[in-house]
Amino acid sequence: MPKQIRLNAFDMNCVGHQSPGLWTHPDDRADSYNTLEYWTDLARLLERGKFDALFLADVLGIYDVYKDSPRTALEQAVQVPVNDPMMLVSAMALVTEHLGFGVTCALSYELPYPFARRMSTLDHLTKGRIGWNIVTGYLESAARGMGLERQVAHDGRYDVAEDYMQAAYKLWEASWEDGAVLRDRKGRRFADADKIHRVRHEGPHFKVDAIHLSEPSPQRTPVLFQAGASTRGRDFAARHAECVFINGPSKKVIGGIAADLRRRAAAAGRDPSDLVIFTMMTVITDRTSRAAQDKYRDYLGHVSEEGALALMSGWTGLDFGAMRPDEVVRFTDKADAMTSALEAFTTADPDRTWTVGEIARHAAIGGRGPMLVGSGAEVADALLSWVADTGVDGFNLAYVLTPGSFADVVDLVVPELQARGVYKRDYAPGTLRQKLFGRGPRLPASHPAAAVRPGA
Amino acid sequence: MPKQIRLNAFDMNCVGHQSPGLWTHPDDRADSYNTLEYWTDLARLLERGKFDALFLADVLGIYDVYKDSPRTALEQAVQVPVNDPMMLVSAMALVTEHLGFGVTCALSYELPYPFARRMSTLDHLTKGRIGWNIVTGYLESAARGMGLERQVAHDGRYDVAEDYMQAAYKLWEASWEDGAVLRDRKGRRFADADKIHRVRHEGPHFKVDAIHLSEPSPQRTPVLFQAGASTRGRDFAARHAECVFINGPSKKVIGGIAADLRRRAAAAGRDPSDLVIFTMMTVITDRTSRAAQDKYRDYLGHVSEEGALALMSGWTGLDFGAMRPDEVVRFTDKADAMTSALEAFTTADPDRTWTVGEIARHAAIGGRGPMLVGSGAEVADALLSWVADTGVDGFNLAYVLTPGSFADVVDLVVPELQARGVYKRDYAPGTLRQKLFGRGPRLPASHPAAAVRPGA
Repeated sequence: MPKQIRLNAFDMNCVGHQSPGLWTHPDDRADSYNTLEYWTDLARLLERGKFDALFLADVLGIYDVYKDSPRTALEQAVQVPVNDPMMLVSAMALVTEHLGFGVTCALSYELPYPFARRMSTLDHLTKGRIGWNIVTGYLESAARGMGLERQVAHDGRYDVAEDYMQAAYKLWEASWEDGAVLRDRKGRRFADADKIHRVRHEGPHFKVDAIHLSEPSPQRTPVLFQAGASTRGRDFAARHAECVFINGPSKKVIGGIAADLRRRAAAAGRDPSDLVIFTMMTVITDRTSRAAQDKYRDYLGHVSEEGALALMSGWTGLDFGAMRPDEVVRFTDKADAMTSALEAFTTADPDRTWTVGEIARHAAIGGRGPMLVGSGAEVADALLSWVADTGVDGFNLAYVLTPGSFADVVDLVVPELQARGVYKRDYAPGTLRQKLFGRGPRLPASHPAAAVRPGA
Repeated sequence: MPKQIRLNAFDMNCVGHQSPGLWTHPDDRADSYNTLEYWTDLARLLERGKFDALFLADVLGIYDVYKDSPRTALEQAVQVPVNDPMMLVSAMALVTEHLGFGVTCALSYELPYPFARRMSTLDHLTKGRIGWNIVTGYLESAARGMGLERQVAHDGRYDVAEDYMQAAYKLWEASWEDGAVLRDRKGRRFADADKIHRVRHEGPHFKVDAIHLSEPSPQRTPVLFQAGASTRGRDFAARHAECVFINGPSKKVIGGIAADLRRRAAAAGRDPSDLVIFTMMTVITDRTSRAAQDKYRDYLGHVSEEGALALMSGWTGLDFGAMRPDEVVRFTDKADAMTSALEAFTTADPDRTWTVGEIARHAAIGGRGPMLVGSGAEVADALLSWVADTGVDGFNLAYVLTPGSFADVVDLVVPELQARGVYKRDYAPGTLRQKLFGRGPRLPASHPAAAVRPGA
């Protein structure tokens, strides 16, 4: 059987996610993000299209780097207002049976003990369909919201993250043994206390001295998602992540990142195929190639280039509002502050320069990711060639309109992929982890979380 | 129209809430607490019975005071395992239209900035049906889970709470003006940035310097629930709470607490009727008085008195496991550590003494609250007399079996109350706050939150 392509939908509990301005399109429903109906309709749609998961981005701050002000972000609804993503899961789980949920939670601001319980709760309620996108945060405005003067420096954030993961693994994997829960009504014993252990973690940043509050959930540790693009971020992903989200403007860039991630995973003692790599992609499709191009032109009439610059300024920490539109952007001098946003542009073609205006136009649809415009068959072929040429496992699909962009893929691209034998016609049974990796519901012995298990 | 009686259901995202051991009863479904089906069935049932709200208790620790060990709590499932209550709300909101949700969240361990967003998110998704039960925490085991040596002293916790409320009020009430959100597709402006303000809070415990991440939700500030029983707790409730949960073994005690709370609310500049006071009650009912008594006897065969002592030890901080069953408990010497659990026993009848065994038997059904056993008509009459004699507004109903105890009340007691003209036949329109107070969706001008509003 040819390699199966995996699809995630990329959304956020906000109005304008990756395509600033498109919320003004008459067919867009993004501004009903604050209703249950939007999310349950979306979840049903994605399950109809056999998507592996809905991946929910999040950010705990406002994009106020551009022109040193939150004005553009607020006026153009650039990822603000933004509501909490975790609160959406149980309603969507109720109307679906297989769809997974990858929820972004920044570990910088919530302690492992209550956070581990939240994830265990969601894993119970979804019967093992929860994933956690591990994020360390990148906006100064988020740190100020928390009462801090400024956020922890980039590499420092990964030290914090490493310590956090150890504490969380212990709560999920080491507190309640398998078989600790008896549910023995006749014998009047709910649990065997001898098989339940107090976790003691004394790390540089976190201390825990507690029994995990939740009984073991189907997956124990949620499926771990990560999107680190820096060297330090890739090392972290290679060590901990099961699903990695990457982003880049060309196959060359993406192929390089994917190969590098698998090398690093092998170096960390893991099977390189234990990483499922999703690359970001925006798809505009219709019945015909021409209709898709027309759709694209229609969308262009609704973009907000200023919104795109607000987004890019937030991602990179560079104020594009202090530059002229025709000014060429030089990234190298602020390399430390760079996120994948800038690496995408600079590494694609080192000889090519980008002006502020070019960046704005590029980022206004699908953020910093590449875009495919074409009929269902054309898009399917293009996705196949991306997989063949880069070694990724699938795509994290951003929307232009929601739920329209997802509906178009479900109705037009998915059948083409299925006809080519590269896309499932039915979900595999079991938890999200079982569906993704075709083995048990728990992390494999080669994962660092396994080292904290009793008897490991 | 006679005064209308209000009913809340009292539950917790755990197996054994207030009636230790009853999870072993063949008709009990409490151990399916970790499924969506349990919660959506319960929510539908409560809405059928026109309950005002489902009140979800929570605790972020384990009852390990008894015999200085978590063993009894774990074996008898005494409020452990306990999952996160917030994660339940969106699924229950999806299958109901009117039921409110009062969710307990301890403010000691989550910063105002992300917490305010979580509540705003739930207020959006439920269309204004969310309430927050403000808790400061009481278990040392919770503090240890958070990496602390021990919890903040009791009165200090209320200082922290006061500061927390100020920060949260500013985020909910002062950041986005009414009219800030335009959703103007034609004019391509989502919001008017001039009407959105950065909140600056510099309190003794919390600092916030941020725009609230959520646009205004129907209620802005969630309906505020509180259950403080100490003098300091009552002052806090009188100042901030809209719904107060109280508990006590007799009408005399409850009447005294209710009157005291209303006096304190008046002293704080509020209308005493702006407090909706619920007292805890456990109801065992059936078609006839005799059938109800038989049911009670059947339940008694499933109680865990040791579980009850573990619960009481956790609530009071006194290790009842270090005492003989016939030993008389003297509470006065540890008055500072007392919660309402002990005040309930000691203030009911100052001349009566209680042995450890008597406390265990009393607390094993319905925890520390009173109990009514009888036919629907008998229970309805008793509830009416409680309201008439104490001045409370309604009842926070604990279960013996779940959802059986709630179903019995819905099917047998609610129709009797309706026939007496003291219970709604339909919900009032609007948000939870509108349903409870018969005026607008926002807090009234006399509430301290109103003082932070722009132009206040």
